[in-house]
Amino acid sequence: MNIDMIQAAAQRLDNRIIRTPFLTSPFIDERAGRRVWIKAECLQHTRSFKFRGAWSAISALAPDIRAKGVMGFSSGNHGQALARVANIFEIPSLVVMPSDAAQIKINNTRQLGAEIILYERNSENREQIGADIAKERGMTLIKPFDDPEVIAGQGTTGLEIADQTTKLGLLQKTDVLVCCGGGGLISGIALALEAQAPHLRVRSVEPEHFDDVARSLQSGERKRNTRRSGSHCDAILTPEPGKLTFPIMQRLCGPGLVVSDVEALQAMVVAYEHLGVIVEPGGAVALAAALYRKEWIHSDDVICILTGGNVDSNVFTRALEQFGTNA
Amino acid sequence: MNIDMIQAAAQRLDNRIIRTPFLTSPFIDERAGRRVWIKAECLQHTRSFKFRGAWSAISALAPDIRAKGVMGFSSGNHGQALARVANIFEIPSLVVMPSDAAQIKINNTRQLGAEIILYERNSENREQIGADIAKERGMTLIKPFDDPEVIAGQGTTGLEIADQTTKLGLLQKTDVLVCCGGGGLISGIALALEAQAPHLRVRSVEPEHFDDVARSLQSGERKRNTRRSGSHCDAILTPEPGKLTFPIMQRLCGPGLVVSDVEALQAMVVAYEHLGVIVEPGGAVALAAALYRKEWIHSDDVICILTGGNVDSNVFTRALEQFGTNA
Repeated sequence: MNIDMIQAAAQRLDNRIIRTPFLTSPFIDERAGRRVWIKAECLQHTRSFKFRGAWSAISALAPDIRAKGVMGFSSGNHGQALARVANIFEIPSLVVMPSDAAQIKINNTRQLGAEIILYERNSENREQIGADIAKERGMTLIKPFDDPEVIAGQGTTGLEIADQTTKLGLLQKTDVLVCCGGGGLISGIALALEAQAPHLRVRSVEPEHFDDVARSLQSGERKRNTRRSGSHCDAILTPEPGKLTFPIMQRLCGPGLVVSDVEALQAMVVAYEHLGVIVEPGGAVALAAALYRKEWIHSDDVICILTGGNVDSNVFTRALEQFGTNA
Repeated sequence: MNIDMIQAAAQRLDNRIIRTPFLTSPFIDERAGRRVWIKAECLQHTRSFKFRGAWSAISALAPDIRAKGVMGFSSGNHGQALARVANIFEIPSLVVMPSDAAQIKINNTRQLGAEIILYERNSENREQIGADIAKERGMTLIKPFDDPEVIAGQGTTGLEIADQTTKLGLLQKTDVLVCCGGGGLISGIALALEAQAPHLRVRSVEPEHFDDVARSLQSGERKRNTRRSGSHCDAILTPEPGKLTFPIMQRLCGPGLVVSDVEALQAMVVAYEHLGVIVEPGGAVALAAALYRKEWIHSDDVICILTGGNVDSNVFTRALEQFGTNA
């Protein structure tokens, strides 16, 4: 993995992805006690950064291999991205999803044209299911994070951040908070920023009980979560850091931040009220850290990535009732 | 008014505004029966395109004049934009708003630092109130649309559209649907596109009973609305087309489209469900036209501008209950 792969991915993604804006709100700045720059990847195609990695990986395949189709295992955002990209390339796609995935993600992935196989999160091994099907059908398995072309695709987010901060004159040391599951996005961004904006420090943010990355960064070895489910932040509940992503994170990222599920829901409401964007709880943990872990951030400005926006309406409206200004 | 003024405004706005993305959704394309490209100005600073015009006008003032402050009359979006820009320039601002303005707009304008004067929409004349205060305090009146520098600022949206469509290879005849009140945005965009992308045809969209622009374009003379209130589309309920904007619209825009208030609310829900952005009803009429006036559009693609996102939470959640997928 290196910056050249990210730049090559950026060429393939040119005009295929949305260059997501840096949003700001004086109300959020006030609550966070510093300037907050929000990179809204929840506005990306299929409403998460996963579209970048999916396009990068699928566009990198040889045409005859690609024609046989792609498959992946996903809690939903990677799956939607695969389905959409496969659709544009006019190839088949299959997504293995946990049976307790968010309904919006199952529905969208299916409607985007993928075949869906549901599995039990607590009793079945998705990696094994995925590998078996890929072999049987001749489809290429696109892993959700531990794949160099996926990491390269996610890293294009970092190239944009480097360019956007330069144009804004944001040249001092600044923390970049990234919602973190297996580490595909954060490691891609870290590699891009190492090359193009080394004054930006990349830090992971995770929900409590699923802080494998924070603990791994602290201890220097890959740690596992004991739980596998039981959080609203479904998009980032991976069991442990990736094999490819962890060494990159270890070299370039940290220390990790952790927020509660309630804080993720509150940040989701803040994004709705002050930015007018819908973020899913797992995509809101970076903003939650900026709002509720102020004392852990030491830069004058902070950059937060909103990583995804696919949230079930009932989760969103319940949070609004509970935490909205009118609540 | 000409393209040079818009380009000069673009220079002043460089890195001060958000280059808002073109969002897309295959679900929206399917419902609209064609490809829909959504220019999300609801993501602009202060959540509407009005920030462009406010920055353009205020930055064009001589420093000694500017230092005395600015004032404006506004249903809320222009007011928030003035307040925010004034804050950044560290000058005072005053906004005259109707007493029945959306609560979120009154609150935000005040919290952004403007002094607020409320007036009765049906019995008092806001232009007179505005002119009197401006004179008394020595503040510069920044009109909401009938001001060349405001039109130039809004026109920068058109420069971006020209650039974005070129990059996307959208080179055939395409309708550009613009939510329309007094015509500042649409006339600015039309001038920009005339110079840089003349294959794009600009068309106004208004709510029923407030279709002064559509009727004016059809008859060739400025027509007034009989009603002054009574629509959820508060942002675009102007009494008649502007004196400066109408000749530009007459030369370059039309025919106008009209949608119902219910369709605007439904489009707001569609934008929430499929794009993850919050649009106010008056900012959603262009999308409503793409969804519910298909037979009036004849191009293969259509571009819709979401002009603003400041909606009271109770209006939004009520629409969600009524028109959401789970309703």
